[in-house]
Amino acid sequence: MPKIVDHDQRRKEIVEVTWRFIAREGIEKLNLRDLAAAAGYANGAFKPYFPTRDTLLVATFNFVADATNRRIQKSASGLFGLEAIEAFAREVLPLDELRRSEARIAVHFWHLALGDPKLAEVNAATMDNWRALLDSWLGQMFSDEDTRVPMARDSMINFLMGAQVGSVLDAKANTVALLEQQLTYQLDLLATLNQ
Amino acid sequence: MPKIVDHDQRRKEIVEVTWRFIAREGIEKLNLRDLAAAAGYANGAFKPYFPTRDTLLVATFNFVADATNRRIQKSASGLFGLEAIEAFAREVLPLDELRRSEARIAVHFWHLALGDPKLAEVNAATMDNWRALLDSWLGQMFSDEDTRVPMARDSMINFLMGAQVGSVLDAKANTVALLEQQLTYQLDLLATLNQ
Repeated sequence: MPKIVDHDQRRKEIVEVTWRFIAREGIEKLNLRDLAAAAGYANGAFKPYFPTRDTLLVATFNFVADATNRRIQKSASGLFGLEAIEAFAREVLPLDELRRSEARIAVHFWHLALGDPKLAEVNAATMDNWRALLDSWLGQMFSDEDTRVPMARDSMINFLMGAQVGSVLDAKANTVALLEQQLTYQLDLLATLNQ
Repeated sequence: MPKIVDHDQRRKEIVEVTWRFIAREGIEKLNLRDLAAAAGYANGAFKPYFPTRDTLLVATFNFVADATNRRIQKSASGLFGLEAIEAFAREVLPLDELRRSEARIAVHFWHLALGDPKLAEVNAATMDNWRALLDSWLGQMFSDEDTRVPMARDSMINFLMGAQVGSVLDAKANTVALLEQQLTYQLDLLATLNQ
């Protein structure tokens, strides 16, 4: 069924063009016509794949989240406990231009999600997935009865989300070196939790 | 000079109307005409005070930041070290509907600031102010030579920024009770830094 394969490939290409456009130009400027033109497609060429701007945006955010999650899976593979948590955190922290672009996408997406419960659910599902991952690694480090473990998990996620904002809007205090040091601080403290 | 007093009062009223509109409706829907109508002003009445949407948005973000900063000053007054840091953090954390509205404003504003260096500077100035406050309180707790202190400061700020996102977009993991527990975790760990 070569036609279906082509459709999937085309959808993927459109989403890749879209996320690079948003990272570079912002989401305000995104409309299907200009995006098609910028990517060398005919006007209306996106419509069969993404009938509305919103369907394209959901697909784009999911694409970015999937890319991050694939990197996490690869980086944390074979690791346990604190080492796995560090590998996870380093894939989310904006430590290079790719991840800074992902942070820009996240900030734009959050703004949209405030006005659209469907988008907010997409975001919350990513967070649920990350909480489940962190639970498994924290479970390798701490007793189930330690009531601080869920707080450690959720404040780690909030730290990472805030670092996404900081890296793109308060960059001098959130350079790569400084973000690495902030992460080391958070991980060092986590390691002392049961001492 | 009663006229000047009126102008200041009018500017303040317009900004208050604006920030409540954004918290309720989002920033996408904000245009000067609808805002004037919603607030019972004549069309064009805002123009002498805020000639463009952007000047109004900058004034609105500054108004919200000033309100938070006044609360911080009041709450932390007479406190030192960890107690002052807790009082500060509780004014930023979205622990009630007012502060959740402020969090919504922040998320919308960050999105705009990504495309506008002038707005990004307004945001970074607020962060600079908070860093200076935290430095003074951390200086009451720790030696200047402790290299982890700047990391504690910056990761605390990133935690608080992430909590703003979480409280409005991932609410079930960031209820008031859970945010309070996350803050306790962060403060407990900070207290053990020099042990």
